[in-house]
Amino acid sequence: MNVSFLQELLSSVAEQGRSLLPKSLFGIDAGEDVEELAGALVSGRGEASGVAIARELLDRYARLDAEERLRFFGFLATDMQPDAARVAEAAQAHLDAPSAASLATLQKALESPRIEFFRRLHLAPGATPEIVAMRRDLLRIPADKADLAAVDADLRRLFYVWFNRGFLVLRRIDWNTPAAILDKIIRYEAVHEIQGWDDLRRRLDPADRRCFAFFHPSLVDDPLVFVEVALMRDMPEAIGQVLEEPHAETMGKPPTTAVFYSISNCQEGLKGITFGNFLLKQVVEELAREKPSLKNFVTLSPVPQFAAWLQRAAAEKEDETMAGEARALLAAMRRTGWPEEASDVELADIEAALLPLAAHYFLNAKGADGRPVDPVARFHLGNGARLERINFLADTSEKSLREGCGLMVNYRYDPREIERNHEDYANNGVVACSRAVRSLLKGKSKARVVASEAPPALPAPAKADS
Amino acid sequence: MNVSFLQELLSSVAEQGRSLLPKSLFGIDAGEDVEELAGALVSGRGEASGVAIARELLDRYARLDAEERLRFFGFLATDMQPDAARVAEAAQAHLDAPSAASLATLQKALESPRIEFFRRLHLAPGATPEIVAMRRDLLRIPADKADLAAVDADLRRLFYVWFNRGFLVLRRIDWNTPAAILDKIIRYEAVHEIQGWDDLRRRLDPADRRCFAFFHPSLVDDPLVFVEVALMRDMPEAIGQVLEEPHAETMGKPPTTAVFYSISNCQEGLKGITFGNFLLKQVVEELAREKPSLKNFVTLSPVPQFAAWLQRAAAEKEDETMAGEARALLAAMRRTGWPEEASDVELADIEAALLPLAAHYFLNAKGADGRPVDPVARFHLGNGARLERINFLADTSEKSLREGCGLMVNYRYDPREIERNHEDYANNGVVACSRAVRSLLKGKSKARVVASEAPPALPAPAKADS
Amino acid sequence: MNVSFLQELLSSVAEQGRSLLPKSLFGIDAGEDVEELAGALVSGRGEASGVAIARELLDRYARLDAEERLRFFGFLATDMQPDAARVAEAAQAHLDAPSAASLATLQKALESPRIEFFRRLHLAPGATPEIVAMRRDLLRIPADKADLAAVDADLRRLFYVWFNRGFLVLRRIDWNTPAAILDKIIRYEAVHEIQGWDDLRRRLDPADRRCFAFFHPSLVDDPLVFVEVALMRDMPEAIGQVLEEPHAETMGKPPTTAVFYSISNCQEGLKGITFGNFLLKQVVEELAREKPSLKNFVTLSPVPQFAAWLQRAAAEKEDETMAGEARALLAAMRRTGWPEEASDVELADIEAALLPLAAHYFLNAKGADGRPVDPVARFHLGNGARLERINFLADTSEKSLREGCGLMVNYRYDPREIERNHEDYANNGVVACSRAVRSLLKGKSKARVVASEAPPALPAPAKADS
Amino acid sequence: MNVSFLQELLSSVAEQGRSLLPKSLFGIDAGEDVEELAGALVSGRGEASGVAIARELLDRYARLDAEERLRFFGFLATDMQPDAARVAEAAQAHLDAPSAASLATLQKALESPRIEFFRRLHLAPGATPEIVAMRRDLLRIPADKADLAAVDADLRRLFYVWFNRGFLVLRRIDWNTPAAILDKIIRYEAVHEIQGWDDLRRRLDPADRRCFAFFHPSLVDDPLVFVEVALMRDMPEAIGQVLEEPHAETMGKPPTTAVFYSISNCQEGLKGITFGNFLLKQVVEELAREKPSLKNFVTLSPVPQFAAWLQRAAAEKEDETMAGEARALLAAMRRTGWPEEASDVELADIEAALLPLAAHYFLNAKGADGRPVDPVARFHLGNGARLERINFLADTSEKSLREGCGLMVNYRYDPREIERNHEDYANNGVVACSRAVRSLLKGKSKARVVASEAPPALPAPAKADS
Repeated sequence: MNVSFLQELLSSVAEQGRSLLPKSLFGIDAGEDVEELAGALVSGRGEASGVAIARELLDRYARLDAEERLRFFGFLATDMQPDAARVAEAAQAHLDAPSAASLATLQKALESPRIEFFRRLHLAPGATPEIVAMRRDLLRIPADKADLAAVDADLRRLFYVWFNRGFLVLRRIDWNTPAAILDKIIRYEAVHEIQGWDDLRRRLDPADRRCFAFFHPSLVDDPLVFVEVALMRDMPEAIGQVLEEPHAETMGKPPTTAVFYSISNCQEGLKGITFGNFLLKQVVEELAREKPSLKNFVTLSPVPQFAAWLQRAAAEKEDETMAGEARALLAAMRRTGWPEEASDVELADIEAALLPLAAHYFLNAKGADGRPVDPVARFHLGNGARLERINFLADTSEKSLREGCGLMVNYRYDPREIERNHEDYANNGVVACSRAVRSLLKGKSKARVVASEAPPALPAPAKADS
Repeated sequence: MNVSFLQELLSSVAEQGRSLLPKSLFGIDAGEDVEELAGALVSGRGEASGVAIARELLDRYARLDAEERLRFFGFLATDMQPDAARVAEAAQAHLDAPSAASLATLQKALESPRIEFFRRLHLAPGATPEIVAMRRDLLRIPADKADLAAVDADLRRLFYVWFNRGFLVLRRIDWNTPAAILDKIIRYEAVHEIQGWDDLRRRLDPADRRCFAFFHPSLVDDPLVFVEVALMRDMPEAIGQVLEEPHAETMGKPPTTAVFYSISNCQEGLKGITFGNFLLKQVVEELAREKPSLKNFVTLSPVPQFAAWLQRAAAEKEDETMAGEARALLAAMRRTGWPEEASDVELADIEAALLPLAAHYFLNAKGADGRPVDPVARFHLGNGARLERINFLADTSEKSLREGCGLMVNYRYDPREIERNHEDYANNGVVACSRAVRSLLKGKSKARVVASEAPPALPAPAKADS
Repeated sequence: MNVSFLQELLSSVAEQGRSLLPKSLFGIDAGEDVEELAGALVSGRGEASGVAIARELLDRYARLDAEERLRFFGFLATDMQPDAARVAEAAQAHLDAPSAASLATLQKALESPRIEFFRRLHLAPGATPEIVAMRRDLLRIPADKADLAAVDADLRRLFYVWFNRGFLVLRRIDWNTPAAILDKIIRYEAVHEIQGWDDLRRRLDPADRRCFAFFHPSLVDDPLVFVEVALMRDMPEAIGQVLEEPHAETMGKPPTTAVFYSISNCQEGLKGITFGNFLLKQVVEELAREKPSLKNFVTLSPVPQFAAWLQRAAAEKEDETMAGEARALLAAMRRTGWPEEASDVELADIEAALLPLAAHYFLNAKGADGRPVDPVARFHLGNGARLERINFLADTSEKSLREGCGLMVNYRYDPREIERNHEDYANNGVVACSRAVRSLLKGKSKARVVASEAPPALPAPAKADS
Repeated sequence: MNVSFLQELLSSVAEQGRSLLPKSLFGIDAGEDVEELAGALVSGRGEASGVAIARELLDRYARLDAEERLRFFGFLATDMQPDAARVAEAAQAHLDAPSAASLATLQKALESPRIEFFRRLHLAPGATPEIVAMRRDLLRIPADKADLAAVDADLRRLFYVWFNRGFLVLRRIDWNTPAAILDKIIRYEAVHEIQGWDDLRRRLDPADRRCFAFFHPSLVDDPLVFVEVALMRDMPEAIGQVLEEPHAETMGKPPTTAVFYSISNCQEGLKGITFGNFLLKQVVEELAREKPSLKNFVTLSPVPQFAAWLQRAAAEKEDETMAGEARALLAAMRRTGWPEEASDVELADIEAALLPLAAHYFLNAKGADGRPVDPVARFHLGNGARLERINFLADTSEKSLREGCGLMVNYRYDPREIERNHEDYANNGVVACSRAVRSLLKGKSKARVVASEAPPALPAPAKADS
């Protein structure tokens, strides 16, 4: 590929959003409102002057207040729909005599004029971020205010194609990245807050730290999703080992374990478009290529719903054993002034009670859809990771204690079992986990738990399964 | 916008098509054929290992022979269709009780699994050119060999979104452009063949020559469409003035007229996706910004169907006057050994007979769709240009004489009338033309011809209406 | 110029510092010390294997401790000298019979082998920053420790050519600049300390702030010198107007005045190589090109020696009038608890006493070389600026009060008088100043003061001469 | 290193050659001639307005005719010299009482004002190519026209520092290189003429072809020196194997031998500044890194002086044996109509006579300086290569037959012996050669010939010593 030509090519993007010629030349009337412009855009005028109309519409949209935006989205929801009569007619014709032609006619009748509207809005050079921001505005409107679900569905359908994985580009973020991008990394970090530029530098600059992001060529100064990685000698048991301890690099040994300790989506307007799983898998490949000494790819992840579940479990009528254990645990925590004031013996007792309940939470507690109740678990298990280890008192921040009783979890990404884990999970709700996690259940589990072990092909890491 | 970061960003695209980890890790069986892989891709396996399956499928596709490709496309046409029963059920439900929900259900049932298939194929980094090439292969299959229209329709639908104008980037092509790109310009030029590198340099390098192309960020070393421009003092009457004469730049006066003398589409696989009109309009803006002395934006275009029409006109029963004139003209051409051997007097006679018939051809001769028979005219008139001048003996190449009796035509792009011309043409089939062209008809026209004149706002160019 | 090719070109610099082949192949013996390697480098071995020897020498130098470095520089000072006998012979020959040839021979005999040594050291790709750092180490050796002046003179002579203005590149520093560069800006700022990243952003990011630096292509991630600029409506009277006040941009009027409020040299190893004056003059050009509304180019500069001079002046025997005024002023300052506790009336009295003495300091107080005692004044006056205004209580920071009694000064760069001012200053020691400054002297000056006024050609700025 | 920042940095070079402010502001009088400007540049005015004066001087120089240039260079030769009296005084003082101080004073007195003049000329941004072109002009002046040697010596001294190896950047030239650079490659090729763009493509584009060039950051669109390389399976015996035969890549085996078959200097104005040896050695490193299968680095070089020497040898009185052999050979060539018309038997006879004489030419025939008479041999042997093989009828082009009797030679660059070869050659005139070449001498050699064999460490290539 001809990289440098491409580089010049894209440097000109920045220049091309401006329109030189007066808009009046394109028949745009200053009196037209956004709804009229939207109508013009999908009409014959849009074919001739689409670029100018789209630019004008985007400029006007940017100046709308909240109420005007609501009205505009309402207009899109109501007026930009497939023609009901034409749909009915085509549906009837297809039912009467189904054929390839009748199917195509029905498909055509059902195409949303809104999609064509947004496509034409995208005629304006540089419009991509503006249309993404439009969906952000849409999502911020309270659901009870208006029925805009169909508008959102169409935008999402479009973004699903525009932001197709094949268009995304992986980029390392480091201390040579422009400050304007780093600023956004600070702002977007959603897991372990970045405490200013010195903290950021500690996460990016050392030789055993990495950060990668996906970018889209038409949204160049804004990452879509990023992940922070620590290269270590062992799978960490606590977040402090990642954020605070002296780095393994000082030990002069090659790292064996890549720890994904924070992954954050950046674009509110792209909610529901999946990037995180692709990012993790490509970063696994990048790191394996760069550092052949890396054998383990694990996360250190929060358990945001555990404390709430523990409260519910304590009141559970159907599983009195579990409820009793949960109540005893909660009582012990209160009684001992856990975690700060508990003695070592008390802590050991709490750990002994807490970990089996946590294993139960991950392996047996399911939502209405038959999936684990923990959203982080759902993300990683759905990606084909397995639950490797549950770590006691791994994060003693106020938030972690409140939400997850201080627990953190390692999920392991093993390329050899990702696909199998994913399919077992997707088809049968099976939660892949290590033998160590399963053994925490002490035989009480009736759920379908699979304790997968790493196949012997790769050299076994030091603490892979502890 | 942060250009340099973007540049580094894209330089890494080139690196990211490779997969490090052995494919076997992703459960890809060397025995699976492309059809099985295609099925896997849209299944749950595709969710977990989509990137690897897509890459493998593309690699295998590249090695298929013609027959295997035919079978593969047949598989896509037959097996990757909406579920007939589900469609019928949803259609019936919507007819029985139409609602937003029933409409959404019907739309969902009608979504083509093929589109999802191609979207997942595009999970593979760098896949864009390969999928475009796939449609090129598809289009080359003779229509009578298989019914693959639905496959093509889906690909085209997808490309329409992928290659949305908002993603395209305009780039000047000049003598500093990499040779690999210039090579393609030579190869893709479809109007006036480029006779090697010296000819290319004459078209790119002089101060009064320009070439612009649209590129897509995921197809970076391959232009989508390009246009060659000469900056002149007058609207040219013959192609020789553009390709051969000493350049106006030597005259030391600022150019007033940008002449688009060649526009070529490059990607066979993107047939039917419109780029040319956007390119012309953006180049008008770029040039107006760069050289404020430019007041006229015109083409010098071939008339590829005129000679064939003239033959038909000579045999026309319904318009005996015209038929007689056509026959007289053809006879005069033959008799005088036109054009080389005809005397000046004979040439003048032929011109006097030819131009009115040409005006008739453009303004009155319509196809079944009510549009002009000339494809070049349809393109420019559909873009909102007007027919400015018909030039006698403007191109004496063998091809031009054979196809267009040596005629060339200037179309004028005037921003102030583009939208109106487009709408009149689109809605009513009106052909915008200058008074000069209309007067050639000598009152015989019954067609709805509009002779538009430039509004007075811009300073009138020297020969604007000659 | 072919920019993008250049860009790729330089991206490869980063790769080219590494040597693949084992050093032993080049006959480099691990036992050789830096002095032996230095000898080898200027010998015949250096001709064949210079690149490898230079790289090895630089690697070893980097590991030397302070004492070893001292010894190494001593070796360069002692052993790498012109051959005394050859010099004597050539000098005698030239004195006996001077000719172009004898002159050339003498020049050749006098060429320092050290210069050839450093040139060969620079055979190693990427060596430029290392050799600059070498001079930094050299300059840090206390002068009484060794006589290394000749080594420094040769390095400086070489750097004077290597860092010739024609090689330097001006770059704007802004919020899109890589963090690693911005980090250095924070570190190198020598005038008004940057209080972390938020302060930095306030100086770089607003639309009315600029920062420019000179870079050298072989020292790319390290600026040589930079200047911070505020675009304002008026020449500022106090640093608070630049660093703290709401920006003029909010007023919606085009700026008229570019204020250079901080200029910092970055490279200790390039001490004595002049960059600042070239930077200021090129930034004047850049800004005039970018913002035609800018008519005034002024500094807001500290007066670091004034307080010390005032103490000396109070004890001055030769000018009793001045001494008395100085003593009265100092007494008033003490008595009133100046500046915080002084009343408005007291402040006005102090200002009335202070400003004439400051004018005297700039215009009459000269060092042994006949130049002003103030180093900042020497820099700007030597560049051809004139002293435009002396500002009372312009910087109330502890440092400014202590060193400059809170004064700050505007120097004006007017392209029309730069050369004249420079020559008058260089040849005759004339201090160019505004009429306002001169009038502060109240007729007591006997020095040659030139009060230049802006010629009438450019529109006079609002407060240009207040 | 921060590459992308550098890239942006350099993209601005292109912009910085322009001066916005009218030159009259800088006191530049349109009436001043180049000599007056040159004087002004080294005076005090040059300190203040050097950039503007240098730019003006360069602009005026560009418009001088040949005679005016001659006068200008004469002015530099005559008027810009060290002050004779000051030199004499300093020389005498040093002779009277030599000290570090007196030496420094003498060095200072001898510094050429011309060098300072050229350094100040280089204050103008973008001046580097113009000053290089100035030396080109100087070198084109016939030596008998004026005594400008001292001017040339100073320019050369300056360029030796400006173009120090450490500043140069190696770049691969390929089919993605901008056409404007490739154009220059075609023009500068000095060994095997490039027959247009198709030929160029054959040399750059195939997977087994390479081209590398050195660039200087301030001369970015113009290479300094470039080398063309073919990656092969065997050391080639004839140029046809490189330029015409089907490429080894089609054989699907990794290449073992890098063949440097053409190396060309590009800048006439940099004559005498050495780049070729650095280029060859760095390319050896680059290729060894890229393709570990490469074990042999050889040239295929012309023998431009052999035919002339053979004529002289035939007339040689002092070595009658050799003269007789030479005469017999020349007679055989004439008699047989060599090479086209000679029979196989005759060719074999000619080869048997020719090769020993060629070995004699390389090993024994020396110029007045004790070096081989062949300039190509002097270059490669001086770089530390050894003479590996002499190839009969290796280039049957008219030029090669006329100058070198169709011979071509392989020189081998073996990193393990480069330094030793260089030193033996530089100190003792020893010509390193293979045993095969030496054995051609058949014991008649009295010269000091060293037949070096590759040490056993690296795997021996297939035909390394044939």
